[in-house]
Amino acid sequence: MPPSALLTDLYELNMAASYLRRGMDQPATFSLFVRRLPPGRGFLVAAGLEPCLAFLEDFRFEEDELEWLGRELRFEASDLDAFREVRFEGEVWAVPEGRVVLANEPILEITAPIAVAQLVETYLLNVITFQTTIASKAARCRIAAPDKDLVDFSFRRTQGTDAAMAVARATAIVGFAATSNVEAARRYGLAAAGTMAHSYIESFPTEKDAFRAFAEDHPTRTTFLVDTYDTPNGVRTAVEIILDLGLTERLGVRLDSGDLDALSREARHLLDAAGLRGVRVFASGGLDELDLDRLVRAGAPIDAFGVGTRVGVSADAPFLDSVYKLVEYGGRPVLKLSSAKATAPGRKQVFRGPDGDVLALRDEQTPAGHEPLLVPVMREGRRTGPRRTLETARALFEADLAALPEDSRRLAEPTPPEARPSAALQDLDRRAREDALRRAGVL
Amino acid sequence: MPPSALLTDLYELNMAASYLRRGMDQPATFSLFVRRLPPGRGFLVAAGLEPCLAFLEDFRFEEDELEWLGRELRFEASDLDAFREVRFEGEVWAVPEGRVVLANEPILEITAPIAVAQLVETYLLNVITFQTTIASKAARCRIAAPDKDLVDFSFRRTQGTDAAMAVARATAIVGFAATSNVEAARRYGLAAAGTMAHSYIESFPTEKDAFRAFAEDHPTRTTFLVDTYDTPNGVRTAVEIILDLGLTERLGVRLDSGDLDALSREARHLLDAAGLRGVRVFASGGLDELDLDRLVRAGAPIDAFGVGTRVGVSADAPFLDSVYKLVEYGGRPVLKLSSAKATAPGRKQVFRGPDGDVLALRDEQTPAGHEPLLVPVMREGRRTGPRRTLETARALFEADLAALPEDSRRLAEPTPPEARPSAALQDLDRRAREDALRRAGVL
Repeated sequence: MPPSALLTDLYELNMAASYLRRGMDQPATFSLFVRRLPPGRGFLVAAGLEPCLAFLEDFRFEEDELEWLGRELRFEASDLDAFREVRFEGEVWAVPEGRVVLANEPILEITAPIAVAQLVETYLLNVITFQTTIASKAARCRIAAPDKDLVDFSFRRTQGTDAAMAVARATAIVGFAATSNVEAARRYGLAAAGTMAHSYIESFPTEKDAFRAFAEDHPTRTTFLVDTYDTPNGVRTAVEIILDLGLTERLGVRLDSGDLDALSREARHLLDAAGLRGVRVFASGGLDELDLDRLVRAGAPIDAFGVGTRVGVSADAPFLDSVYKLVEYGGRPVLKLSSAKATAPGRKQVFRGPDGDVLALRDEQTPAGHEPLLVPVMREGRRTGPRRTLETARALFEADLAALPEDSRRLAEPTPPEARPSAALQDLDRRAREDALRRAGVL
Repeated sequence: MPPSALLTDLYELNMAASYLRRGMDQPATFSLFVRRLPPGRGFLVAAGLEPCLAFLEDFRFEEDELEWLGRELRFEASDLDAFREVRFEGEVWAVPEGRVVLANEPILEITAPIAVAQLVETYLLNVITFQTTIASKAARCRIAAPDKDLVDFSFRRTQGTDAAMAVARATAIVGFAATSNVEAARRYGLAAAGTMAHSYIESFPTEKDAFRAFAEDHPTRTTFLVDTYDTPNGVRTAVEIILDLGLTERLGVRLDSGDLDALSREARHLLDAAGLRGVRVFASGGLDELDLDRLVRAGAPIDAFGVGTRVGVSADAPFLDSVYKLVEYGGRPVLKLSSAKATAPGRKQVFRGPDGDVLALRDEQTPAGHEPLLVPVMREGRRTGPRRTLETARALFEADLAALPEDSRRLAEPTPPEARPSAALQDLDRRAREDALRRAGVL
């Protein structure tokens, strides 16, 4: 079932009803972008576009929804008739998922009759903001531990179960190796990963009984959770079971508490001393990118990290200062004047070049040596090409990550690059500002 | 469609397969609680129970899910046969939604054969953690502005659209008056609220044209957004339109930027001077409970606040340190020893009395003058009573809020009360600890 058209704020319906009554069907362009990066972010990773396109393709009000709008929210019959006909038949330009974006660079621009462009605002803003938030946070884990396997362990404490799906998806875009989330693995074709919980150990008479039982039941995929009672003892017991059962395939020990640097060295030592060099050391337990960075720099012999809550909610920056602004209506560039919230007018493009990004107008010529970031993804309400896969997004991310300047990649106090406005954009901004002041009655 | 049984972590399936193979079907009790409150929280408000009960009632694997588990995750046919039969037929005790809870107090305890109790962990932990996070944050807004109307404006930047539904629900529990979220209003029977956006103003030749159009189209519910160009000018224009059209019903002006204290006074003054005392002043724009507190203490004449992103993601504390711990298995109390993550054994109850809360064992007698917080909500997989409404939850919240000690209610650096362990719990803890050390081979 496609998402409901009622996934919107009431004011969108109020405005849409008014536009439809008045026949205000000239094309409007809205630009979705992040005004300022949160502290601790040197760049963003665009994500969330695919679900937005799916939403737009199927956008329509169902009869039971219209009936409810009339009965409970008192929309008039003529409004409901107008809502009934609404479809998204507009145009979308967007930065493909996985690409690095900066403040003020449109992630998505939509052009459609203003009523429908307004009705879809809440959904688009919500989905792009959230998935971009998570991809941008998770990208920092990749920077911290570029050569380790990262596994999304966040499901139990994301902001809802739907959020967990998006987190699995966004972390896959930035190169996580697997997720613990079974439904997300199924939905998005991701690798699923899982070990055992402390409760499993505790439900057997002894830790050794638990380890033996699990290894007998899953002989080709056992990661022993070794910290329930005493970690080094747990590792010795795991070694004993591995040797006793003659296990060889996909083995690991998981450390979930304590001094992970010291314990991982001890675990590695015990495993190696028993000739078990192939058994991997897995670490988890409230980790974020700064913990990963510390452990990797210290040279802790950890092969894979389970990354959970702090990344799954982007704990240090759980939202972005994202907006969806009208930038053109009926061919006229539009901007907002209010202090501290001013926005630049017109349909835009971002040109990425060797000296950084240029924020330009969409119909400007691409400067030599530059690449346009926004590409057309929908025309007349239909996708312009096939659905992009997560693999495509991941490849774009890897390339953009490699090209990021060092001070933007830095984990501690990164310096985000800023896009320079083009001369044409500056000129349009000046003219539109005068026009807006005239409308406000100030000029 | 009920939520999928695949909304779980892979390790739950691994463990469940092992338990089912081994016929380990003795009852296990898991306790879901928050270990420590985040800084800035003096109490929590329990929320999320109703969706969990709905999930448990319908818990089952569908054929296509089983087929996928066999094909992609290589579960054996016998495991799939065992999964096929799994239902939740256990018992649940819980703190009703809306009640105040503290660290270490179980919000929910579940007793069922260990395989199924484990399979439902991820969903229960996710939903209770998130909704409790939001209810606890939003409760602080109620404390800051007890006599104002609060409206949930968070939809556009919550962590996914499903999260927005939960936010609308959780904020309703703590007494928010309305939500901008249309689908949530429909789903939960909440009041919907909405005004107009800056884009609406900008799509007309002048602000006055926009105000007139909206008021003509919505004469019984117009809140004028007055800050697109210049706020005092905007208020004057709204006054002109109100008088011109002779509007009288449900009128307001909304301030969305700038110095809300000064601007609300100026707006109130302009409205009153025009004889429009009934027109309400509405404020919004990145507000959290500390902003509300500042504005209310300053005496700003604001009637209603739109509260958005910072509350909708609980920006200062976007998750809780929640856990789901095995506390009893096959009649044997269980506890975890690992350093810094120790948990107390046994099925529990919380007795709330005049001197605070007592964390006790479930079968202890209620002390005189005390009230047990946990009540049975499911037996043999069925609810013990009708669904509790949001109104019930809200009434429980209002009563608990009124009874909260002042240093726990305080917005800045609150001191959370702590539950005292009962003598019987302390005694069981001592005995279970010795037992655990014996199992670990330490004693």
